[in-house]
Amino acid sequence: MSTRFQNRPLDSLRPVKFTRFYTRYAEGSVLAEFGNTKVLCNASIVPGVPKFLKGSGTGWVTAEYGMLPRATHLRVDREAVRGKQSGRTQEIQRLIGRSMRSIVNLKELGENTIMLDCDVIQADGGTRVASISGSCIALVDAISYLAKTVSFTTKPISQLVAAVSVGMVRGQPYLDLDYGEDSSAQVDFNVVMLEDGSLVEVQGTAEHGTYTQEQLNELITLARGGLQQIIALQREVLELDL
Amino acid sequence: MSTRFQNRPLDSLRPVKFTRFYTRYAEGSVLAEFGNTKVLCNASIVPGVPKFLKGSGTGWVTAEYGMLPRATHLRVDREAVRGKQSGRTQEIQRLIGRSMRSIVNLKELGENTIMLDCDVIQADGGTRVASISGSCIALVDAISYLAKTVSFTTKPISQLVAAVSVGMVRGQPYLDLDYGEDSSAQVDFNVVMLEDGSLVEVQGTAEHGTYTQEQLNELITLARGGLQQIIALQREVLELDL
Amino acid sequence: MSTRFQNRPLDSLRPVKFTRFYTRYAEGSVLAEFGNTKVLCNASIVPGVPKFLKGSGTGWVTAEYGMLPRATHLRVDREAVRGKQSGRTQEIQRLIGRSMRSIVNLKELGENTIMLDCDVIQADGGTRVASISGSCIALVDAISYLAKTVSFTTKPISQLVAAVSVGMVRGQPYLDLDYGEDSSAQVDFNVVMLEDGSLVEVQGTAEHGTYTQEQLNELITLARGGLQQIIALQREVLELDL
Amino acid sequence: MSTRFQNRPLDSLRPVKFTRFYTRYAEGSVLAEFGNTKVLCNASIVPGVPKFLKGSGTGWVTAEYGMLPRATHLRVDREAVRGKQSGRTQEIQRLIGRSMRSIVNLKELGENTIMLDCDVIQADGGTRVASISGSCIALVDAISYLAKTVSFTTKPISQLVAAVSVGMVRGQPYLDLDYGEDSSAQVDFNVVMLEDGSLVEVQGTAEHGTYTQEQLNELITLARGGLQQIIALQREVLELDL
Amino acid sequence: MSTRFQNRPLDSLRPVKFTRFYTRYAEGSVLAEFGNTKVLCNASIVPGVPKFLKGSGTGWVTAEYGMLPRATHLRVDREAVRGKQSGRTQEIQRLIGRSMRSIVNLKELGENTIMLDCDVIQADGGTRVASISGSCIALVDAISYLAKTVSFTTKPISQLVAAVSVGMVRGQPYLDLDYGEDSSAQVDFNVVMLEDGSLVEVQGTAEHGTYTQEQLNELITLARGGLQQIIALQREVLELDL
Amino acid sequence: MSTRFQNRPLDSLRPVKFTRFYTRYAEGSVLAEFGNTKVLCNASIVPGVPKFLKGSGTGWVTAEYGMLPRATHLRVDREAVRGKQSGRTQEIQRLIGRSMRSIVNLKELGENTIMLDCDVIQADGGTRVASISGSCIALVDAISYLAKTVSFTTKPISQLVAAVSVGMVRGQPYLDLDYGEDSSAQVDFNVVMLEDGSLVEVQGTAEHGTYTQEQLNELITLARGGLQQIIALQREVLELDL
Repeated sequence: MSTRFQNRPLDSLRPVKFTRFYTRYAEGSVLAEFGNTKVLCNASIVPGVPKFLKGSGTGWVTAEYGMLPRATHLRVDREAVRGKQSGRTQEIQRLIGRSMRSIVNLKELGENTIMLDCDVIQADGGTRVASISGSCIALVDAISYLAKTVSFTTKPISQLVAAVSVGMVRGQPYLDLDYGEDSSAQVDFNVVMLEDGSLVEVQGTAEHGTYTQEQLNELITLARGGLQQIIALQREVLELDL
Repeated sequence: MSTRFQNRPLDSLRPVKFTRFYTRYAEGSVLAEFGNTKVLCNASIVPGVPKFLKGSGTGWVTAEYGMLPRATHLRVDREAVRGKQSGRTQEIQRLIGRSMRSIVNLKELGENTIMLDCDVIQADGGTRVASISGSCIALVDAISYLAKTVSFTTKPISQLVAAVSVGMVRGQPYLDLDYGEDSSAQVDFNVVMLEDGSLVEVQGTAEHGTYTQEQLNELITLARGGLQQIIALQREVLELDL
Repeated sequence: MSTRFQNRPLDSLRPVKFTRFYTRYAEGSVLAEFGNTKVLCNASIVPGVPKFLKGSGTGWVTAEYGMLPRATHLRVDREAVRGKQSGRTQEIQRLIGRSMRSIVNLKELGENTIMLDCDVIQADGGTRVASISGSCIALVDAISYLAKTVSFTTKPISQLVAAVSVGMVRGQPYLDLDYGEDSSAQVDFNVVMLEDGSLVEVQGTAEHGTYTQEQLNELITLARGGLQQIIALQREVLELDL
Repeated sequence: MSTRFQNRPLDSLRPVKFTRFYTRYAEGSVLAEFGNTKVLCNASIVPGVPKFLKGSGTGWVTAEYGMLPRATHLRVDREAVRGKQSGRTQEIQRLIGRSMRSIVNLKELGENTIMLDCDVIQADGGTRVASISGSCIALVDAISYLAKTVSFTTKPISQLVAAVSVGMVRGQPYLDLDYGEDSSAQVDFNVVMLEDGSLVEVQGTAEHGTYTQEQLNELITLARGGLQQIIALQREVLELDL
Repeated sequence: MSTRFQNRPLDSLRPVKFTRFYTRYAEGSVLAEFGNTKVLCNASIVPGVPKFLKGSGTGWVTAEYGMLPRATHLRVDREAVRGKQSGRTQEIQRLIGRSMRSIVNLKELGENTIMLDCDVIQADGGTRVASISGSCIALVDAISYLAKTVSFTTKPISQLVAAVSVGMVRGQPYLDLDYGEDSSAQVDFNVVMLEDGSLVEVQGTAEHGTYTQEQLNELITLARGGLQQIIALQREVLELDL
Repeated sequence: MSTRFQNRPLDSLRPVKFTRFYTRYAEGSVLAEFGNTKVLCNASIVPGVPKFLKGSGTGWVTAEYGMLPRATHLRVDREAVRGKQSGRTQEIQRLIGRSMRSIVNLKELGENTIMLDCDVIQADGGTRVASISGSCIALVDAISYLAKTVSFTTKPISQLVAAVSVGMVRGQPYLDLDYGEDSSAQVDFNVVMLEDGSLVEVQGTAEHGTYTQEQLNELITLARGGLQQIIALQREVLELDL
């Protein structure tokens, strides 16, 4: 049977760490680390909303994602130089945005946009789930900051959201895949869950095989275990009862 | 309780129709209709492969997706004029490509690329699942055409693939959502399945709510019922035992 | 002497067919077929006008043109992927726009734009003239639709417009060139004419030779014969006295 | 009856002037002036040909066109800043390229491209016809230069080409329209002709009206008179029997 | 010891010439020549200011720079075709803009922008310093023109600005480098100075070596000598006491 | 008299810190901090060289620069989303590239490119000088790594390079300006120097005033003092006699 790096059990997370206030200027700023994966998640409050919300009194939450060119083993061309974001980048930033909106009551924000900038400093698999899990904390901090100028009628956020990856590797269910595991997985899931255990997003892809409905359930159950731990960490870091 | 257009039962597909040989020049050409949704799926054999496969002797299958500007109720700007494909477009064409590759033994193709062009003539929900279901047929035809010049050592395709959407609308599971249903769904799934019942891709998004693992299972089971019917139609149209 | 496909006489059109109401959502929607050339012409009413007309009370009519990647014998790269429209595409859409404006009294439209989207499903020569001839019908339908909300003081359209190609092939004048004929023509003309026989646009190019003023006249006379037939068809399809 | 600037007769050209060797480095360099319209036409010999000619032993002739931002009464945005060439620019440069190719035996050039760069220093109508008429001279000079390194088996150029505009203004045929006349013309033609009187290109547009076949003939006859004068000037400047 | 072209002494300028009113339409238009380097500098008054100045009552002065494709020994691709301005182009146009703003009291302009378009007709080294020196004159003319519609409370310009290049070539300080000298210089400085001798900008680059602080001073002193001559020429051409 | 943040003397640097091996995958990786300014400098060895060096046996060193969107007080749009790098970005990355090439014997590298990626995590003035000073260390590390596969005939690097900013603020010379000081400086210099005290690049800009040659010398002398300290720190961090 295969073993993981540093004998990590199949159902264990890598060391997960969230560092709040990582940079000075953003209204929320968190370095999210899942093992060697490091993502800087900055939340900015930007006055104004997209066109389709203008005049509605409602706010918006969205996200952008980027990778530093040498976050990875081999250098990847800078998207600003190529002149466009890749399909992968756009797919990921749409996922982060939807995940963040799942916990915010947009009506409470006034016509403000909260922009989450997720920039990958170092990539070892799971950058999108680290982005979501870290962004949640940055978002909570940004909304606390917004409270100085906007008075809320109800809590704009009622629970936390986190994400984790799971996959079938050599026929076994793995929690929190690193880059090597992800590359050799038959099946790869990203699962986004709220604190109350309800699901927000499941994306399961089989690049090198297929999966049964039973395997899907096994993987989601495995993910939910990991997600409870991540959410516990988020609460601890935030020192906050929502 | 809500009723669907033309009293369609919640677990029924819209009329699904595949027209082969829809245009003259493509090696495979299928018009896929799911109710009022109409997608033209053309398969082209293009000599050569992407850079990362050059010299490998292996082929490639990929896809591009587009919507005619007035496929929808309101006109949408032409992507060629805006100068880039939207994130949504890129997300969809990546999904179609992965789905097609799930049934092809790329090593049998030689250094050829099969490009699936999915162009939406009319959109009433489910354009990405119609694209996948129609592209499968066009792909089979293109590979038959390729057989004239490439001799295969094993069958390049061993089974068919299809896709369908399901969702929770007003608390009920719905099969094959039209545009109106899709807009009001709490939860929206796209499910891609092979003939043998194994899953290739599950993408479940909750823009307006969340879902439990039980609901997820209920939806996937519902999708699988619809997918068996779509695959039966594909086989009928292809008049072909694989 | 050379013969044409299916023994078509040199001064005959290919079978020309206009199918109204081809898609459901556009205010005007026509599939125009000239033999194997098939162009979908959708007319959309879009509130507002370009900057140079704002506040003038006058409307605008314009056009965009595209080719599905596999409309042709060999696949052509998608313009949305390349990130820009080719010079040829822009040249054609400017021609369609001018031709449509030649029959509309823009002052009657209010500050609305009618956008003609001409998308080539299958290309066998003459896509720009099929686009113009089909767009005319879609435009008439869109203006009838506009009549529900805008009250006209005079008829916004007083006559129809159509276009056809003619050329010198192996020293002979040909009407309505297909792709093979177009490729081997010494001289290639596109002629746009109104119902009353007056000319709107003549574009005559000699890629492989030159032409005399006499040949030019011979070709225009030939074109006018074909255009009378096309306009008769347009009137028939529209079941409409203008 | 209307009068033209400085009482120019309706069938007269503005002062036309070609200055050879206008810049130092290009293989051919001509400043073409039609009244206040001034276009710098530089011909460059660039080794290599476009992809579709590689290995054929045949050369290519093509053109690019640009306007300095303040060539006109009001400043126009720089195309390099906007990031793309307009449809008008592309239409014009395609026309110049076709006109130049009409006089060159491409097989004599070897695998070299002659690029004509037409840059408008000052624009007062007729920039595209000045570009063509000036480029012809620059092209002849570039081909003389090419003769130093390529030995021709036959003359690569056998006659000259020139272009002029004509139009119907207030019901009268006008030769060589300036900007003000062009703006108020019902009908506007650009005519490209060879030395032997044969036509290469006729582009006739009616933005504000239509025209009869008789008017078309009247305009082309008028154009041919002007073109003979322009070609005589080209010959004089080139001091060259072809 | 090395000699310069036509035995020019090391501390001499090439023949410098400014031709005012070079084109007809721009509010200021100057052809600046430094030997074989020729730059057309057009100043346009454009109503409105950039976003960050809207509502401030203050004007703006900025610049754009371009090179005709065949201004140089070898043809350079047209930036409008490549779809973007190079880093070099942007660096230069930012420098020209800053230099022009150093002499203008922006508050006097009202909310108008003066745009300097510097287009290089022929390049033989020093195009950026010719652009600055010529633009200064075009700017003065444009501001005189603006005086017709805006009444100034103080002089908007109080002194002239000019620029010159200097460099160390084979260990010797050279004034006003031509292309060949620039290519072989160890050190290359561009110096921008006001009439009163104060410095606005010094940019000193050592592509092939380094320099001491003493050499830097020697070069700046050399530059100031040349700049006094250029400013004297500007005053002469402007026939104007500021 | 004005005081600086935390009573820093006018001729003192902010705390400067270089952290080597900051990320895991790059061949050289340094976090450079000048006070609150933090720039990640990654050096990558990329096989191959730009076109103009192909076949020469010589290597290349170049740089790219980027700012995370929320490195600054207010969020700045992501360049990958806008689709191009700003002029400021290009100016900076060209400066970094030239500075790095000033210390490398490119002939020793073989046909390899060393790419320096400078990404600003947090910006408080002086990001370009921090980029240069940090990149020097990353470059040394990358070249040590290259020594595993390329055998050098002479040392590819013979001395270190560093950069610092200086400026005139309220009439006083300041060393190492933070963002607030930079914004209010009349004159702003970036000075790049080698270990032996020779200058590589001086860029002095006066956005709000001018400067005399005496002030220029005073500022460069001040910069050189700071640069000696920075180079001492670089040597210490590298634990390396070159």
